[in-house]
Amino acid sequence: MHLVTLDDIRAAADRVRTSVVRTPLLPAPSADPERPLWLKPESLQPIGAFKIRGAFSAIARLDERTRARGVVAYSSGNHAQAVAYAARAYGVPAHIVMPDVTPRVKVDRTREYGAEVVLVPIGERESAAYNIVAERGAVLVPPFDHPDVIAGQGTIGLEIAADLPDVALVLVPVSGGGLASGIGTAVRALCPNAAVVGVEPELAADARASLRAGERVDWPVERRARTIADGLRSQPSELTFAHLRAVLDDIVTVSEDEIRRAMVELAHSARLVAEPSGAVGLAAYHRYAAELPAGPTVVVISGGNVDPALLRAVLDAPDPADRQ
Amino acid sequence: MHLVTLDDIRAAADRVRTSVVRTPLLPAPSADPERPLWLKPESLQPIGAFKIRGAFSAIARLDERTRARGVVAYSSGNHAQAVAYAARAYGVPAHIVMPDVTPRVKVDRTREYGAEVVLVPIGERESAAYNIVAERGAVLVPPFDHPDVIAGQGTIGLEIAADLPDVALVLVPVSGGGLASGIGTAVRALCPNAAVVGVEPELAADARASLRAGERVDWPVERRARTIADGLRSQPSELTFAHLRAVLDDIVTVSEDEIRRAMVELAHSARLVAEPSGAVGLAAYHRYAAELPAGPTVVVISGGNVDPALLRAVLDAPDPADRQ
Repeated sequence: MHLVTLDDIRAAADRVRTSVVRTPLLPAPSADPERPLWLKPESLQPIGAFKIRGAFSAIARLDERTRARGVVAYSSGNHAQAVAYAARAYGVPAHIVMPDVTPRVKVDRTREYGAEVVLVPIGERESAAYNIVAERGAVLVPPFDHPDVIAGQGTIGLEIAADLPDVALVLVPVSGGGLASGIGTAVRALCPNAAVVGVEPELAADARASLRAGERVDWPVERRARTIADGLRSQPSELTFAHLRAVLDDIVTVSEDEIRRAMVELAHSARLVAEPSGAVGLAAYHRYAAELPAGPTVVVISGGNVDPALLRAVLDAPDPADRQ
Repeated sequence: MHLVTLDDIRAAADRVRTSVVRTPLLPAPSADPERPLWLKPESLQPIGAFKIRGAFSAIARLDERTRARGVVAYSSGNHAQAVAYAARAYGVPAHIVMPDVTPRVKVDRTREYGAEVVLVPIGERESAAYNIVAERGAVLVPPFDHPDVIAGQGTIGLEIAADLPDVALVLVPVSGGGLASGIGTAVRALCPNAAVVGVEPELAADARASLRAGERVDWPVERRARTIADGLRSQPSELTFAHLRAVLDDIVTVSEDEIRRAMVELAHSARLVAEPSGAVGLAAYHRYAAELPAGPTVVVISGGNVDPALLRAVLDAPDPADRQ
């Protein structure tokens, strides 16, 4: 299987440069002087998540005639909005297939980016998407299972290596694995002494189980759906799993309470609104720091699209132990 | 009176470059296609506010022997933390004079940055600070009334001009006026066609009244204290007022409700925690857009240090009219 290379990621960086925010590394107050901490706030991208990088990387690479026929995605989350946003930037149609139980606010937001939203029963998402591909000649943009998408997410790793060449540890959320595959590939190539560690919720730790088993382990969707981190409920594909095995040092897990506490800390100490999935890296930093490599540490905050009611509920919870 | 020049600001940029975050311009969903909007999130600086730029600019410029005697500031807000943080970075003592009624959390946070906090009755802040200057030979770092501080804040304007050379309008909060003086000076010099407009709360609109009168108008402190925007309760000095007259096109005002709505919008649509003072520019964008110059617009989000209870209260309020 061909794995994405540093050159692929550099080419992706050229494609997305004018379309995404070059996010800074934010120095964070660190509880641990051995592990000074920086945050990489991908929550500040347009549409509020790193997914915009993969979407632009994939759509920019299509030849113009193909792209003009439009793009298709099936997603009810950040990937849907990323593909809609990128398609609008190129002036091409976007067809986003969503389960008919998707909350109205997510449907509306995707439509605001100019996409045509196709609502179908949840079991028919894939077939509906492939029908659009067949009927219109539109191109499917998968959320993680594609080299151009992985390379796009990997541009985050290029930026980390450029801004903090002596980075010792990168903590990155793992769901379908596109983000961790891309960042891990770039960081391993450019900072060979750095560790790259994936983070999953305990309640959706299929990728950790798979790494341990040496093969993909299936967790039923209803099991993965228990976590508050709704962006971390996917499972790696063959392609991303091959990358994860090659580039991750480990995957660690965090509890739901730890995720909530990290969201509160990000709001109050880093002035960032993070979605639960975006906060798992900081949760892992606090839980595992002493067991992980010492040195400059980067936590990737992958997204900030949290439902207003959930954000209020998390911030309204009793203040966690002071952890400034 | 000597006004700060573009060269002064460029020199300040050289002094602060390795100490502050090079904040990106974040494209924001804009209600107004005539005025595409970018946010400049100074809330993401260490200590959570632009004040860090002025503090580093001033402290970096001291000769080494002078600096070693330490620095002094009187402030209970972001300036206190900025001076404490910058002094620690230089390994020199910081003495921060605060009113004895300052909330404990602000005292603690300033002490966490290594400063010695001196609590005095509110009317004795200045004299206490000058006593420390006299006794120890420490140097007073004023919050806005100093050319090096103004030049430091002006580095934000350099970055705006570099990232968005065709900017048509910059909206910037006004309190003591250091931020608006610095940004206005840089933007006027580099983007002569851009308008620079200050923003104040209606309840603390002394600088607007002063601009209208052509001379400094005093609003009693209890009048200015009515606004929720606790960072915007100072008044310009002679030095900053001279800058504001020279570089601002106008000052506009916003209501308390508009400030709260802008905070909610920043949290949900831009994934940024802003303090009330940091949100006034976005409030002004919505209220005045049609009356202001058309074209690419930048709103400076000056800080994000909001009391957790206030943040919860603002987010808990009924959702404002949809303004995505």
